[in-house]
Amino acid sequence: MTEKSTDVTRRLLSRRLFATTAATAAAIAPFAVASQATAQSPEKTTAKAAGRTAGEPGDVRRITLYVDNLPNGQLGYGLEPGKPTIPGPLIEMIEGETLEIELVNNADVTASLHVHGVDYETTSDGTRMNSSVVEPGDRYVYTWRTHAPTDRPDGTIEPGSAGYWHYHDHVVGTDHGTGGILRGLYGPVVVRRTGDTLPDKTFTVVFNDMTTNNLTPAPDFTAELGERVEFVVITHGNFFHTFHIHGHRWADNRTGLLKGPQDPSRIIDTKTTGPAESFGFQVIAGERVGPGMWMYHCHVQSHSDMGMAGMFTVTDADGNVPGHSMDDMSGHSMDDMPGHSMGGS
Amino acid sequence: MTEKSTDVTRRLLSRRLFATTAATAAAIAPFAVASQATAQSPEKTTAKAAGRTAGEPGDVRRITLYVDNLPNGQLGYGLEPGKPTIPGPLIEMIEGETLEIELVNNADVTASLHVHGVDYETTSDGTRMNSSVVEPGDRYVYTWRTHAPTDRPDGTIEPGSAGYWHYHDHVVGTDHGTGGILRGLYGPVVVRRTGDTLPDKTFTVVFNDMTTNNLTPAPDFTAELGERVEFVVITHGNFFHTFHIHGHRWADNRTGLLKGPQDPSRIIDTKTTGPAESFGFQVIAGERVGPGMWMYHCHVQSHSDMGMAGMFTVTDADGNVPGHSMDDMSGHSMDDMPGHSMGGS
Amino acid sequence: MTEKSTDVTRRLLSRRLFATTAATAAAIAPFAVASQATAQSPEKTTAKAAGRTAGEPGDVRRITLYVDNLPNGQLGYGLEPGKPTIPGPLIEMIEGETLEIELVNNADVTASLHVHGVDYETTSDGTRMNSSVVEPGDRYVYTWRTHAPTDRPDGTIEPGSAGYWHYHDHVVGTDHGTGGILRGLYGPVVVRRTGDTLPDKTFTVVFNDMTTNNLTPAPDFTAELGERVEFVVITHGNFFHTFHIHGHRWADNRTGLLKGPQDPSRIIDTKTTGPAESFGFQVIAGERVGPGMWMYHCHVQSHSDMGMAGMFTVTDADGNVPGHSMDDMSGHSMDDMPGHSMGGS
Repeated sequence: MTEKSTDVTRRLLSRRLFATTAATAAAIAPFAVASQATAQSPEKTTAKAAGRTAGEPGDVRRITLYVDNLPNGQLGYGLEPGKPTIPGPLIEMIEGETLEIELVNNADVTASLHVHGVDYETTSDGTRMNSSVVEPGDRYVYTWRTHAPTDRPDGTIEPGSAGYWHYHDHVVGTDHGTGGILRGLYGPVVVRRTGDTLPDKTFTVVFNDMTTNNLTPAPDFTAELGERVEFVVITHGNFFHTFHIHGHRWADNRTGLLKGPQDPSRIIDTKTTGPAESFGFQVIAGERVGPGMWMYHCHVQSHSDMGMAGMFTVTDADGNVPGHSMDDMSGHSMDDMPGHSMGGS
Repeated sequence: MTEKSTDVTRRLLSRRLFATTAATAAAIAPFAVASQATAQSPEKTTAKAAGRTAGEPGDVRRITLYVDNLPNGQLGYGLEPGKPTIPGPLIEMIEGETLEIELVNNADVTASLHVHGVDYETTSDGTRMNSSVVEPGDRYVYTWRTHAPTDRPDGTIEPGSAGYWHYHDHVVGTDHGTGGILRGLYGPVVVRRTGDTLPDKTFTVVFNDMTTNNLTPAPDFTAELGERVEFVVITHGNFFHTFHIHGHRWADNRTGLLKGPQDPSRIIDTKTTGPAESFGFQVIAGERVGPGMWMYHCHVQSHSDMGMAGMFTVTDADGNVPGHSMDDMSGHSMDDMPGHSMGGS
Repeated sequence: MTEKSTDVTRRLLSRRLFATTAATAAAIAPFAVASQATAQSPEKTTAKAAGRTAGEPGDVRRITLYVDNLPNGQLGYGLEPGKPTIPGPLIEMIEGETLEIELVNNADVTASLHVHGVDYETTSDGTRMNSSVVEPGDRYVYTWRTHAPTDRPDGTIEPGSAGYWHYHDHVVGTDHGTGGILRGLYGPVVVRRTGDTLPDKTFTVVFNDMTTNNLTPAPDFTAELGERVEFVVITHGNFFHTFHIHGHRWADNRTGLLKGPQDPSRIIDTKTTGPAESFGFQVIAGERVGPGMWMYHCHVQSHSDMGMAGMFTVTDADGNVPGHSMDDMSGHSMDDMPGHSMGGS
């Protein structure tokens, strides 16, 4: 079950923690630089069978995150100067780890970094009120700590940090970062528990007002039949949405996976989500339904009609989708959804 | 508990699977044709005491579903030609079953059948993109499969199909079926797990924009004190709602029933629900609160004030409601909610 | 764990049931009169270590609740005549208890008392339809019963009454109480299970349209580092919100606390909430993040920008907040959020 973790996978993980992969590139090309604590097993088939799991937490890590201007008034976070992405890079941690993030503000406005879910002191709050914002040209270190569940002296359980979280600006435009978020300053954070099942790929979907990842129509994602695909779904802005994906479903709990046969969690394929909420789940691409082009979209009818819809394409082992030509896939036309492009990966 | 299932109830179930009853007629008269996998025990008192449960899955079943025009520009699904209902018929399955649905389109627009929760290939997706829509005068077979929870080779659990789901058009008006849903092309699907507790009655409530089951005010439902009543709540359209019922509450999990004493689910009587979300639960009519006229309504104040409110009437064994005359019940007047009619059953 | 309950704490509880404290005064000064079934241990340090829990249910209790006019057209419930508060007083019960509430209507409009979650007959429904509203100058007794979980004869579990609930008017303005709620007629109800962990302080946050507790900006709350603080979050009116608090998080289940190591509940710091929904949770003030000024706010960007934001201030043992002067705390200035006042307690 999800609690399994062998010494081998742990060691593998520890060595490869935070290696850079292109796993989320589909969503955020051409700016993608993703950062993942995911071990990429050399033989995918074995990986699928074995069930790779999150290892033991590593030492304190330090990364640099850059804020940069983008065309059309947008802003983004990136792991390299001049290479911002929307959403910002995926940041993964394992419960118990500490991450120091030096934020370098190369943009023309005061910006900040506010995070959900992890432990941070007010000096890492990212708010003007707590003097943790960064002027243009300056840099500032934010410290994020995480912890495993523990028993409190009073008999209650302190929950662990594991979860599908996110970070965003908290100062551009208003003291709540409304302008920064609108312009693209947000990204996903995944904190795993040692033993949590690792995905083969992670895709991030951010409903930000009437856009998806600041795009209209929504970006497309591609996976191969049988791959373990993780979706991280975040909402921002002013509206509520219902995330829906065709042909796949998940458990409405911490991991999106059932914890055991007694787990009473509802299995869903549609979920209401409001500003700053986040959740995640894993699916086996095409499990019991086969390869194909599966829509994902906001199910508020006017939102999907206005372009909050994209494609989750599941290919067979040869990279094909039965019933669709490669032309379909590299620029398929839909009467009411022109302009969708395939997310190459 | 919910895991109990005797061979007797299983056999009973298997014989009576998908028998047609009038259980949901209250909601959708005069068009009601409901389809239920519910065993109706001859002696209700015994049934209540025994706790009937879902039996073993049956063989492949095939039904025909018709799309027809209704007055005032509405559309409906029905089990007989020329007898569409809004919502469409309740379709029940037991995990492991396969259902082939031949959709006959007798309406004047291209229509389709898209389902949530169950397993279907892209050929049963109900989208124009996947070439699974039906021209007027044509027919098309959609295949829905379901499965029980299983262990995956990688150590995770594949969730079962059990849940409160729904089906709807995905092509009328826009490629997301916005027009079809608006006009009435939707219905409930309940997938049960072998051993799940069966209700005596099922009522379906669909918040579709500012209507309930395309009606304003909302329809009324009636049950007898002590009956096990199941509500299936679905939302469609463009707005978010909060479903509330007076005097009754449920667990916010897969079945709406607590799975055991350690089930941490929140007990609620009000739940936010957005477009294409669905949930269900069972209550014992009048349990600990007695017979009476209990409102159910969307708790968004302006929505209830505009008519998203109906009555869940719980009668005593003689069919009476203490404190209310039969006149009240067959056309009770409320200052701000004229026109409510009792759902006869 | 949460099931612990010593005879000592039970006896302590029984003696002190429903003692009046100023625990929620921060939120509702100058009108605050809170009513709590919380035992206040004389030595706070000991209390923190021991983990006080809810005791056994007491006998039938009877209280009087007054409806009074407030300035500016507002209305409030209060435990003394002429002393209404918004929100109304916190009413706590232990599963198994019965509460008789005599409502004395000293206001100039017909008012009522409708409650969520607990057991009440239609005579205590608080609706015009069920003849349970109170004319100006009149009084009326509402009876609320509660019960612990029990096994039903049919093998299912009847859930207990424990939960974070609320009461509100159901008749002022419209037959759904839209005017009464808008003007302030609402308050929190907490039903505890024997053995549930008790908080040191309870704060109530009611998102009522674009106000918080009918205030703009939102009220501030203060706790000392290490105190067990309970938040009860209720929504009213016409809009949906996302409740968020900086630096603290909780389990999305009945108590907000993990029930055990196998509890699959999602840990969250942001939650969508719609009209008449309610939830609650407990946090240890400043746990792992230290003292400081922590914002809580609706995370719908336009809502927070318009003032749906307040401060959860965590002081050190001396009542100070590192990095902030007392001037900050007794009237801190924020560029976009003027006028915040500290909630003294």
